[in-house]
Amino acid sequence: MAGNTFGNIFMLTTFGESHGPAIGGVIDGCPAGLEIDVEFIQKELDRRRPGQSSITSPRDEKDKVEILSGIFEGKTTGTPIAFIIYNKNQKSKDYDHLKELYRPSHADFTYDKKYGIRDYRGGGRSSARETAARVVGGSIAKLILQAQDINIQAYVSQIGSITLEQDYKSLNLDSIENSLVRCPDDKKGTEMIDLIEKLKNEGDSIGGTITCIIKGVPPGIGEPVFDKLQADLAKAMLSINAAKGFEYGSGFESASMKGSEHNDTFIKEGDRITTETNFSGGIQGGISNGQDIYFRVAFKPVATIMSEQVTIDKNGNKQKLKGAGRHDVCIVPRAVPIVESMAALVIADHYLRNKVSRL
Amino acid sequence: MAGNTFGNIFMLTTFGESHGPAIGGVIDGCPAGLEIDVEFIQKELDRRRPGQSSITSPRDEKDKVEILSGIFEGKTTGTPIAFIIYNKNQKSKDYDHLKELYRPSHADFTYDKKYGIRDYRGGGRSSARETAARVVGGSIAKLILQAQDINIQAYVSQIGSITLEQDYKSLNLDSIENSLVRCPDDKKGTEMIDLIEKLKNEGDSIGGTITCIIKGVPPGIGEPVFDKLQADLAKAMLSINAAKGFEYGSGFESASMKGSEHNDTFIKEGDRITTETNFSGGIQGGISNGQDIYFRVAFKPVATIMSEQVTIDKNGNKQKLKGAGRHDVCIVPRAVPIVESMAALVIADHYLRNKVSRL
Amino acid sequence: MAGNTFGNIFMLTTFGESHGPAIGGVIDGCPAGLEIDVEFIQKELDRRRPGQSSITSPRDEKDKVEILSGIFEGKTTGTPIAFIIYNKNQKSKDYDHLKELYRPSHADFTYDKKYGIRDYRGGGRSSARETAARVVGGSIAKLILQAQDINIQAYVSQIGSITLEQDYKSLNLDSIENSLVRCPDDKKGTEMIDLIEKLKNEGDSIGGTITCIIKGVPPGIGEPVFDKLQADLAKAMLSINAAKGFEYGSGFESASMKGSEHNDTFIKEGDRITTETNFSGGIQGGISNGQDIYFRVAFKPVATIMSEQVTIDKNGNKQKLKGAGRHDVCIVPRAVPIVESMAALVIADHYLRNKVSRL
Amino acid sequence: MAGNTFGNIFMLTTFGESHGPAIGGVIDGCPAGLEIDVEFIQKELDRRRPGQSSITSPRDEKDKVEILSGIFEGKTTGTPIAFIIYNKNQKSKDYDHLKELYRPSHADFTYDKKYGIRDYRGGGRSSARETAARVVGGSIAKLILQAQDINIQAYVSQIGSITLEQDYKSLNLDSIENSLVRCPDDKKGTEMIDLIEKLKNEGDSIGGTITCIIKGVPPGIGEPVFDKLQADLAKAMLSINAAKGFEYGSGFESASMKGSEHNDTFIKEGDRITTETNFSGGIQGGISNGQDIYFRVAFKPVATIMSEQVTIDKNGNKQKLKGAGRHDVCIVPRAVPIVESMAALVIADHYLRNKVSRL
Repeated sequence: MAGNTFGNIFMLTTFGESHGPAIGGVIDGCPAGLEIDVEFIQKELDRRRPGQSSITSPRDEKDKVEILSGIFEGKTTGTPIAFIIYNKNQKSKDYDHLKELYRPSHADFTYDKKYGIRDYRGGGRSSARETAARVVGGSIAKLILQAQDINIQAYVSQIGSITLEQDYKSLNLDSIENSLVRCPDDKKGTEMIDLIEKLKNEGDSIGGTITCIIKGVPPGIGEPVFDKLQADLAKAMLSINAAKGFEYGSGFESASMKGSEHNDTFIKEGDRITTETNFSGGIQGGISNGQDIYFRVAFKPVATIMSEQVTIDKNGNKQKLKGAGRHDVCIVPRAVPIVESMAALVIADHYLRNKVSRL
Repeated sequence: MAGNTFGNIFMLTTFGESHGPAIGGVIDGCPAGLEIDVEFIQKELDRRRPGQSSITSPRDEKDKVEILSGIFEGKTTGTPIAFIIYNKNQKSKDYDHLKELYRPSHADFTYDKKYGIRDYRGGGRSSARETAARVVGGSIAKLILQAQDINIQAYVSQIGSITLEQDYKSLNLDSIENSLVRCPDDKKGTEMIDLIEKLKNEGDSIGGTITCIIKGVPPGIGEPVFDKLQADLAKAMLSINAAKGFEYGSGFESASMKGSEHNDTFIKEGDRITTETNFSGGIQGGISNGQDIYFRVAFKPVATIMSEQVTIDKNGNKQKLKGAGRHDVCIVPRAVPIVESMAALVIADHYLRNKVSRL
Repeated sequence: MAGNTFGNIFMLTTFGESHGPAIGGVIDGCPAGLEIDVEFIQKELDRRRPGQSSITSPRDEKDKVEILSGIFEGKTTGTPIAFIIYNKNQKSKDYDHLKELYRPSHADFTYDKKYGIRDYRGGGRSSARETAARVVGGSIAKLILQAQDINIQAYVSQIGSITLEQDYKSLNLDSIENSLVRCPDDKKGTEMIDLIEKLKNEGDSIGGTITCIIKGVPPGIGEPVFDKLQADLAKAMLSINAAKGFEYGSGFESASMKGSEHNDTFIKEGDRITTETNFSGGIQGGISNGQDIYFRVAFKPVATIMSEQVTIDKNGNKQKLKGAGRHDVCIVPRAVPIVESMAALVIADHYLRNKVSRL
Repeated sequence: MAGNTFGNIFMLTTFGESHGPAIGGVIDGCPAGLEIDVEFIQKELDRRRPGQSSITSPRDEKDKVEILSGIFEGKTTGTPIAFIIYNKNQKSKDYDHLKELYRPSHADFTYDKKYGIRDYRGGGRSSARETAARVVGGSIAKLILQAQDINIQAYVSQIGSITLEQDYKSLNLDSIENSLVRCPDDKKGTEMIDLIEKLKNEGDSIGGTITCIIKGVPPGIGEPVFDKLQADLAKAMLSINAAKGFEYGSGFESASMKGSEHNDTFIKEGDRITTETNFSGGIQGGISNGQDIYFRVAFKPVATIMSEQVTIDKNGNKQKLKGAGRHDVCIVPRAVPIVESMAALVIADHYLRNKVSRL
């Protein structure tokens, strides 16, 4: 009800403020008997952390996840899996000047209006630090999916006006993690890095898009009407900090297409029913059809910039503001594991939900 | 869990197949004491119905909503509001040839794979007829919102490649309902109608987009983290049949913007805190900031077309298929009240949820 | 949230007031492929109806259930099953004198305080008429359970001070439905009937208890911690109008027992692990252990009596009140199918929930 | 879904096994602006802990609660309140002999059947240690209720056959915490202590009952039909380890009462509508009527006893078993704060739910 839980059967609840003692989460509904590779979880978390390279925030958070329950002798027991990541090196003093200030395009003002109180240190609960807990939850969801041969991969498809136009099928998705910006095209990746470096020098920030592909989802996953697979994916993506748009399959392009062009013709390949094209993005009527599911998410530029801005404080007085310290110029590369994690939470949850669709 | 309920406090459950005895719904959680204008509900339903004009489906459904409970002496009593719309003139025989056929880009195949059984008549549960129940639910949500001076208006902003580029602020939104295609720009509206007529003659169909504006939402509505206002709007929109994308505020455009351009500067106007620009689309950190909320939804072309297509049947045999009878060339104009209804459900629900955010 | 839905996967939502146009419900989450015996549903409903015999309310409601969706060619399709029972012969005029009156031990006062408005005709939503919808829902749950060889039987074990002391194992449960009071012991049943007839003449009413036995639940059903099987059964039973207490297995007797007496010793019978005694009532740690589940529910006497009572009206003025027309002296016999239905809803829901407890 | 969350608006999720690194919980939905008295929380937790006196388990757990999030400068912020209690001095080795053993009337067998895996150390998740997290959650719920002048007090009303027959109104409830067995009658309390000491020497255990009184609940709290206040209280109570029965108001006694005796006559006292008697236990139609809410919960004897018992192991082989170490002879006195905590969770949740019942 207060919005800190995601999922229906595989349920992730996250908690924590960026400058409180710890962040973390509880997964309830993970089936018993799943082998848990703790190293894989930590590795996923490392993919999200700041300080990975020259183009990400220089904070070196070295987040370490500790699992508190729900796993016994390397396997899930069916009871809640709680985990915690202690916050380190938070310099709360750094934030005293923000106590009464409303930073532009941040959540300071809206939290104040909603709750009448807020932890102003580092954005408190509205900080993207919360997404670390999603990555832990998502990594366990991925373990469920991997056991079903379902795989999720995301990459940066746009930074500013540098856009990767190619279809994902012509890209080498195995090269994503080799790229500092998580772009599977070397040339475009280099341009993106150059743009980020340039904006860093200018004290500015930039937006981008992420494309995500989910392979191996069997037909039949997704619940019709309100919990269509694309609806839950859209919600998952728009719940990520800075996300501004979602499209799947043909997406916004479909608005200018004719039915005769857009319809995916069914064909038989061996014993398997498949489609010639995949404008449907692997989903028809809210239910997976066995084709690749793919979608794209837009992210706005980071709101904290290193140039001076004018804003107001709690009392409506004009104030000057300049970002200080350790901030990403572009969070899109670091958002790649978050997009994958949220996708994994959706698919794992729907995979389990589908287990009760037939007697 | 099976996906037929929407909302957390104001909860709409819908039921019904397009060719069963009736469709309908139950609203649980509507506060007591709300005056119910049954004519308004019927009027909203009429905005969605086929047969409104030459460019919509010629079926004249004349859906009539009957309210079965929850209203006493013209007011809600706090108990569930059930309503029913009987299905009339369904010619189930018309659908016998579809019994074993998988229509391209329809949900026949996926329902079969999920449930092992499906009501094939007119798409059954996957038919857009289900959205009539959403419009009834949405109209009651609108009555809650109107009492708070919150207003929702949607219009057609694109059909095929005919696009209304103007900002919604420069449009006369009061003229929307005067337009057959629900486009508030006469010239563009005429072009859209011409395009639809042309495609009708060609036996084809076309996609489009809808823009929706919500005015009057006070600051503080929306739940952070997973149930951000934009996340629930995205889910609501992507749950509509044929929807393929969602963006709010600056949307996909934000991907190519710099922080210095995109940040919405806070200013004080009299006693009220407002922002100079509204790239945020009225939402910051998942919570309304008092500015207009606006978003855009993409719709694919109708899958049923009047030209011959090739497909396969249940057994994988090739079959020819040609749409017959009464189908829209473009459902986007009729989707306008559905978009508004889903938006109303989201905002009314979050308006009520916010009532427990402070002691 | 507003309390009109029961269950987590197999979800029943009920609606309707006793003197509105109709009551009914929607079942969401019934698995596809279940054969629906509509006659069985109607028969279950008939077991609950008034006018069955000289000792029940003389109203002859002849409730007829109509199914509106979710069933196709005799089988569930996985989509919501909506059903409706029209209210007939409601004489709303009969209730005009109750408009401003608070009947003792009825919900008139509390509904008024909660909602500020109420449908005063025949108790409105608080009428036990609502339970007809539960019986429809419960009968479909029973069909799921019967397919798993799980059977539920309840009987009247006490009316006033006439108590059936015997263990259920020594009773002929097949004879329950032959008894006007649904008591499987002829002698006690006759005494109960005599008591009810006597109180009818005195214009009074009487309470009682129901015992329910669930056979065939396999080990492993129930969710630990908050959704223990007994917790959900307790909630289900206490949600029935007039229910005042619940105990399972050894129940309140266990308070005076020693551990050495109470522990159920595990033994092996052939290949099956069983227990020598069953004080646990078939549930350990909230999860079924394969033994019979049994529990007892207490019901208070009907609040409407045919003798004159003093009460107050909305304005606090003293008023005299005398029940008129058609009321049960003792609702316990008619509550038997309601207890069974609520038990079926709990077990069917937990049976489905358990399907996702392991990978 | 997996049963580790309680509540609808004020939601408590608990986690942890008795011999894992920690237990704890997350409260989501606590309104912002509530002053948190951490000492009060710790004091409540101390009321539950073992080692309080000669009659409780000699383990001296000294549980210390650490709050990780959701509180800033002494007040709730509206974000999730996570808390953790580290497990200390767990001697897991002590439990090696239980690895394959099914202890009588414990949850070993049923967890194994459900999950195929279990943490056998000290009962794992099924240990009553989990209830420490409920007490933390309940203490925060109590703070919400205290601000509304709603107070909850429970006491031991029976141990074995020693029963406190008096009405709660004639007891001095302020003396409860002065009694080692939490019995507000000195004489009965002494008898209960003697009985417990005697059974301790015999290596046996004993059951009992707890009575709970909730004062100050305003009329209008509770949701009709399925989430009646008594239904949610019943579920809450039956979810406590070892609970076997629940009755409220007249309870099982009502079964032998006549309507003319049982009806609570409405009267006016000054401006306030009240009732002459309170057989209804403060609830009519599932909604509070402003009178005291009172109920009784039965607890079975502790399953672990210090005498030798026979049982079987995983493979069905007979084994001898004798409880060792640190176990309560009677958990009822320590269950008093747990009963109060669960009641507080129910009332706080329904108090908040009621805030959206009217426009």
